[in-house]
Amino acid sequence: MSYPNWLSQRAHLSGSRMALSYGGQQWTFAEINDIAADYAGRLTSLGISSETRVAVLAKSHPESVFVMYACLHIGCEMVMLNERLSATELEYQLQDSKAAYLLVDEELQGKLDSSNKISFSEIQNASPSNFKPEEEWPEDRTISIMYTSGTTGYPKGVRQTAGNHFSSAVSSALNIGIAPGDVWLCVMPLFHISGFSILMRSLIYGMGVQLHPKFDPKICAHELSAGTVTHMSVVAVTLERVLSELETAALHVSANFKAMLAGGGPVPISYMERAEKYGISVLQTYGMTETSSQTTTLQPADAKRKIGSSGKPLFLYQIKIAENAAPGEKAEILIRGPQVTPGYIGKFAERDVQEEGWFHTGDIGYLDEEGFLFVVDRRSDLIVSGGENIYPAEIEKVLLGHPAVREAGVCGMPDEQWGEVPAAFVVLHEEAAMEDLKAFLKSHIAGYKIPKVIRTVDSLPRNASNKVLRRELKSWL
Amino acid sequence: MSYPNWLSQRAHLSGSRMALSYGGQQWTFAEINDIAADYAGRLTSLGISSETRVAVLAKSHPESVFVMYACLHIGCEMVMLNERLSATELEYQLQDSKAAYLLVDEELQGKLDSSNKISFSEIQNASPSNFKPEEEWPEDRTISIMYTSGTTGYPKGVRQTAGNHFSSAVSSALNIGIAPGDVWLCVMPLFHISGFSILMRSLIYGMGVQLHPKFDPKICAHELSAGTVTHMSVVAVTLERVLSELETAALHVSANFKAMLAGGGPVPISYMERAEKYGISVLQTYGMTETSSQTTTLQPADAKRKIGSSGKPLFLYQIKIAENAAPGEKAEILIRGPQVTPGYIGKFAERDVQEEGWFHTGDIGYLDEEGFLFVVDRRSDLIVSGGENIYPAEIEKVLLGHPAVREAGVCGMPDEQWGEVPAAFVVLHEEAAMEDLKAFLKSHIAGYKIPKVIRTVDSLPRNASNKVLRRELKSWL
Repeated sequence: MSYPNWLSQRAHLSGSRMALSYGGQQWTFAEINDIAADYAGRLTSLGISSETRVAVLAKSHPESVFVMYACLHIGCEMVMLNERLSATELEYQLQDSKAAYLLVDEELQGKLDSSNKISFSEIQNASPSNFKPEEEWPEDRTISIMYTSGTTGYPKGVRQTAGNHFSSAVSSALNIGIAPGDVWLCVMPLFHISGFSILMRSLIYGMGVQLHPKFDPKICAHELSAGTVTHMSVVAVTLERVLSELETAALHVSANFKAMLAGGGPVPISYMERAEKYGISVLQTYGMTETSSQTTTLQPADAKRKIGSSGKPLFLYQIKIAENAAPGEKAEILIRGPQVTPGYIGKFAERDVQEEGWFHTGDIGYLDEEGFLFVVDRRSDLIVSGGENIYPAEIEKVLLGHPAVREAGVCGMPDEQWGEVPAAFVVLHEEAAMEDLKAFLKSHIAGYKIPKVIRTVDSLPRNASNKVLRRELKSWL
Repeated sequence: MSYPNWLSQRAHLSGSRMALSYGGQQWTFAEINDIAADYAGRLTSLGISSETRVAVLAKSHPESVFVMYACLHIGCEMVMLNERLSATELEYQLQDSKAAYLLVDEELQGKLDSSNKISFSEIQNASPSNFKPEEEWPEDRTISIMYTSGTTGYPKGVRQTAGNHFSSAVSSALNIGIAPGDVWLCVMPLFHISGFSILMRSLIYGMGVQLHPKFDPKICAHELSAGTVTHMSVVAVTLERVLSELETAALHVSANFKAMLAGGGPVPISYMERAEKYGISVLQTYGMTETSSQTTTLQPADAKRKIGSSGKPLFLYQIKIAENAAPGEKAEILIRGPQVTPGYIGKFAERDVQEEGWFHTGDIGYLDEEGFLFVVDRRSDLIVSGGENIYPAEIEKVLLGHPAVREAGVCGMPDEQWGEVPAAFVVLHEEAAMEDLKAFLKSHIAGYKIPKVIRTVDSLPRNASNKVLRRELKSWL
């Protein structure tokens, strides 16, 4: 099975419709397709072909979208780099993915040294070559690769195919509906599936994206009020800040606004109630990089009677609890459907992601009598902080690299603003200043991963096989 | 690739939503799923399994929907019989399809003798067996089989798979949008793809179907006015009658109403203008049984500047003119996409329906500079009469079976009400009364296929290879 080239087809079918807006500027589907084809020609003359794997390090602005759409036209795989990561982390992903080129935003040039760096202005200045887009895209073509960590502390590069993105977009449409005039407000990073999936939906639905360089609650509240957007993706913390702004500025939300998708952990019921006062329909979702974003969704109508639930699967998907657990019984959450990644690249390329067609999430949960999913424990003690996933193992590994540290254990700590933040417990060989440890961490990992609290202890709680009991650590906080 | 069972999944996800309404009664998705599972149990005890092929001869009422949904649950293939056909025509389809059972509506019992007839009341009275629906449906599973005629005069049984129906529903949604509260008014026969596809969309979208036993312009106009429905499928003649009723009764169309899909040939521009006055968005479509209904659609915004066009393909589909004709150049219309049937059954089971992935429609058309499709000549001189397809070859074959007829030629004749009606020209061996010929036809073919005019002539226009020139006949009218 293959698709008509999404960019060309949208330009053909909805050429005059708004595809992207940013600040005061707008581009139609015909315009954005032409720009993407032009950029594709320039990238081709720089040596990039459908056989190339590139890494993209970019901020949220139109130039980045043009480059990504050019890569779609060419058919090259894009490794989406998170600009918040440290140079060490980014280098790992470049090496693991063997990306032949790094396409980098001018503003982020300084983040990384790489011999095969191509800046966005170099793309613009390259000579255009005669580029003819592919008429069709195979369903199993890898479009994007996103790194996500896990138990080992080594991030894994997750493939997301055209079929994954398509079925994710279609399943979402079958759940919340679509209409030709829809516009999605995008303040989520484009290198995350939450942001990138908005671009994919735009092409598949023929829907406009209103892109913002970063999350600004004032601007978002204004857009909801002005009726210029119909959808928005949020995490609990950004939802709260938009609500606060609506309340402070005494704004109303336009009837044009249809729904918010809330990912990255449960939304407190008090936020749901505040949203309800503004007539905002908030759909809590559960999903991950390996499932191209949302897999289950909780309808607003069920939010109050199913507090803490992540809802039910989208139409094309299935959820079950390992070993066919009875209702209420907790075990690993398994997912099945066309949105599940075919696998990883690099170090984990050989790992099977599915067992008999089911993806094992590593998360623990249960289904209630009505089939609503409740996630009770995130995989590998995952910490979800303002929508970003943080794996304790990754921070522990860095801490153990410091000469003064003998043992390290990291767990999540409740935080009013971010939902959770990391906290660390260390057993030291020799004395070390906490500031020194933090500076060391800073040179290795992204700022948002640095523990808010680092405590020195005499020993860590461990189980029989000597593994750190991270849940036990939580009770020490 | 496979789908979660559409019936079970809809009951699970949208169980309390209205699935079907008829007269004063309504059924939710949970209810209709339970009824279908119950019927499936009874059909199972009557000997029907996923390996069985059944024929269904039914009128448009809830009982028929229950039986069809029961067949979906069981996984048996359904040959959808057209109740307007003659006994001879129906018998051909039963024989060709080798349907093991004929599931027949009480009201239509008299139409056919068949040893393996099971009436709907026999299903209801059968003992229920313990039936467990399949959790998944393979994408390539054949759901429905519909007979369509062609050049040879022998109707061909067209397979429509789960994947065909799914991609058709999704492509339509990506074109006109969907919303959770949508309700489709169904006055099209369920044995045609135009009606059956409404049921498929209902399950895939979680959308309500308001079913009517037959087309009644007064009732339709009333529903459009009352705001109880959001969509409706029409052909030119039914659109005109609804418009007349709206005009006569001085009704307004509710703002709830979103769109009409108009199939079965072009809609006169005067109808489009009348519809526009009521704010009715009419989307003209081009499609066929082999493509599970609509393949191209003309947006209302383009209707006036592209009079006579069938529009552009839906998102997942591609259209081209044979041998890559230049814009404006006429040749055979080729179609590509996941909605195209994998093939025929019975007599034509071996026929390849695709050449290098393209389905050859037999219709002649061209694309203009902007890529809009214009159908200029229907396949095999097809006559489209009030949305029903009539093949001249089929009528000619019957006429030639009459002892007085030596030669016969049939063509379409313009008709104000039906768009076109068949007209016949015959060369006789011996004298015969026209009434006699009509009575003979009546015993062999459906009433709507009987020529409105039969003229006796001395000879028929033929080409070098002695084929009747049906287009020449048109000029004789």
